[in-house]
Amino acid sequence: MQYVWVHDQLTPQEEAGVHLQDRGYYFGDGIYEVIRLYDGTPFLWDEHFERFARSAAELDIPFPKPLEHIKQDMLTLIETNQVYNGIIYLQMTRGVQERNHLYSRDMTPVITAFTKEEDVPSHLQEEGITLWAVEDIRWLRCDIKTINLLGNVMAKRSAEDNGCHEALLHRGHTVTEGSSTNIFMVQNGVIYTHPADNYILKGITRQFIQQLCIENGIAFEESAFTLEDLEDADELFIASTSHEIVPVNHVSGTVTKTLPSRSLTDQLQQSFQTRKLS
Amino acid sequence: MQYVWVHDQLTPQEEAGVHLQDRGYYFGDGIYEVIRLYDGTPFLWDEHFERFARSAAELDIPFPKPLEHIKQDMLTLIETNQVYNGIIYLQMTRGVQERNHLYSRDMTPVITAFTKEEDVPSHLQEEGITLWAVEDIRWLRCDIKTINLLGNVMAKRSAEDNGCHEALLHRGHTVTEGSSTNIFMVQNGVIYTHPADNYILKGITRQFIQQLCIENGIAFEESAFTLEDLEDADELFIASTSHEIVPVNHVSGTVTKTLPSRSLTDQLQQSFQTRKLS
Repeated sequence: MQYVWVHDQLTPQEEAGVHLQDRGYYFGDGIYEVIRLYDGTPFLWDEHFERFARSAAELDIPFPKPLEHIKQDMLTLIETNQVYNGIIYLQMTRGVQERNHLYSRDMTPVITAFTKEEDVPSHLQEEGITLWAVEDIRWLRCDIKTINLLGNVMAKRSAEDNGCHEALLHRGHTVTEGSSTNIFMVQNGVIYTHPADNYILKGITRQFIQQLCIENGIAFEESAFTLEDLEDADELFIASTSHEIVPVNHVSGTVTKTLPSRSLTDQLQQSFQTRKLS
Repeated sequence: MQYVWVHDQLTPQEEAGVHLQDRGYYFGDGIYEVIRLYDGTPFLWDEHFERFARSAAELDIPFPKPLEHIKQDMLTLIETNQVYNGIIYLQMTRGVQERNHLYSRDMTPVITAFTKEEDVPSHLQEEGITLWAVEDIRWLRCDIKTINLLGNVMAKRSAEDNGCHEALLHRGHTVTEGSSTNIFMVQNGVIYTHPADNYILKGITRQFIQQLCIENGIAFEESAFTLEDLEDADELFIASTSHEIVPVNHVSGTVTKTLPSRSLTDQLQQSFQTRKLS
């Protein structure tokens, strides 16, 4: 039987529900994290919880118990469900209150979580994917990992409807990120990605790639690139907790581009595979 | 006992819950309406459901049953709870699915609703309110009445924390709307409000005010005004289903302004009170 974390305890998945007046349900008033497990071991565990704490602080949501206790609860869930290769999804909403835009500061936040056995998408990592370029219409605090995800959801659906695996979002001419991934461009041996400001989510895998680049002597620049820059791109890849590193073969939509190479992407993928289990 | 509408039926409020995997809870993937009742009669009923249908279409959410049946369900809830002066809140999320940004098109949307006995805020309508001016950081589809409301929630809290009743949102220098209201400026006998484009929600009360202006021979212009325009404003008021029409006495925040008059606002308020019961 699979368990989820609800009401501060393990609960059989089929019995799990949340309160109708949970602000997560009325306002999307909450935050989340998705963390990978490789061979039963959580990957970049502390980094994810650091970001979780930052998101909570930015939205003025206090923790209902010390973060270390929450981490322990999540390990209990992982152990109970015996997740080996998969993910844990963790969410915290502001709490239950009679519906009102104005939140009170005396609510108890609601933590929920589930796990899922799920292999990394190695076929995508090998074959590569296509991206659908669309305008980024999301709010201006994309740095907070909130559950207000409609902009991402609509971009993702639009990509799929156009035969692509993921969206390439651009605000005006500037490429920001994917619907649930960060995007990286390789040009003349340099990796470019949007700076970690309010326009993108600072991906944990993105940070890890930055570290891999330093270790491997690969030039990595946190510098935004445009749709026009894509014309001269040698490689393009996406990265996320779920995807790891996945090469892009082709972009269509508001811009069209076939990527001629994937040599640096290959190198980073190999480096990632070595390091993720070390 | 108060009932809510959940799982396609009347349910005692204290037993009401929703599925953990409801996309409303993971993505804020849903829409809503708030409709007023005066002396037991719903106000602008059809107009609200028209907008509800538009929001659903824009988000690619199909109705699980004919709209007329949904309206009938809501009337059943109103009748059961014997709401006299109050509101009905109605929400529809895309449905229950294993968490994935990519939604499938074969889900059954989830409709939930509650009612609340609640008088109009006549003290605010008489005394007037203050607004807190802050940058509008929301997404670029504010015309859809979705439950992705974090930008609104944060603006509202910021207003309250600064001793104001409501936020005045501005994108750059252009005033858009409030956190849950539309905003109107009076200058030299003309009422200005932001055009009903993708930057604001086309308020049902806003539409009704537009109609009142036509009936009363008051000049009404759907033309955006700026923070600078506020300097020469004679009056400012907000409007929403919950507030009806409420005059603004003062604005602070990114701009400071004391409003010298409220004569046209008074006239519209009176007209509103006459018409709402007719």
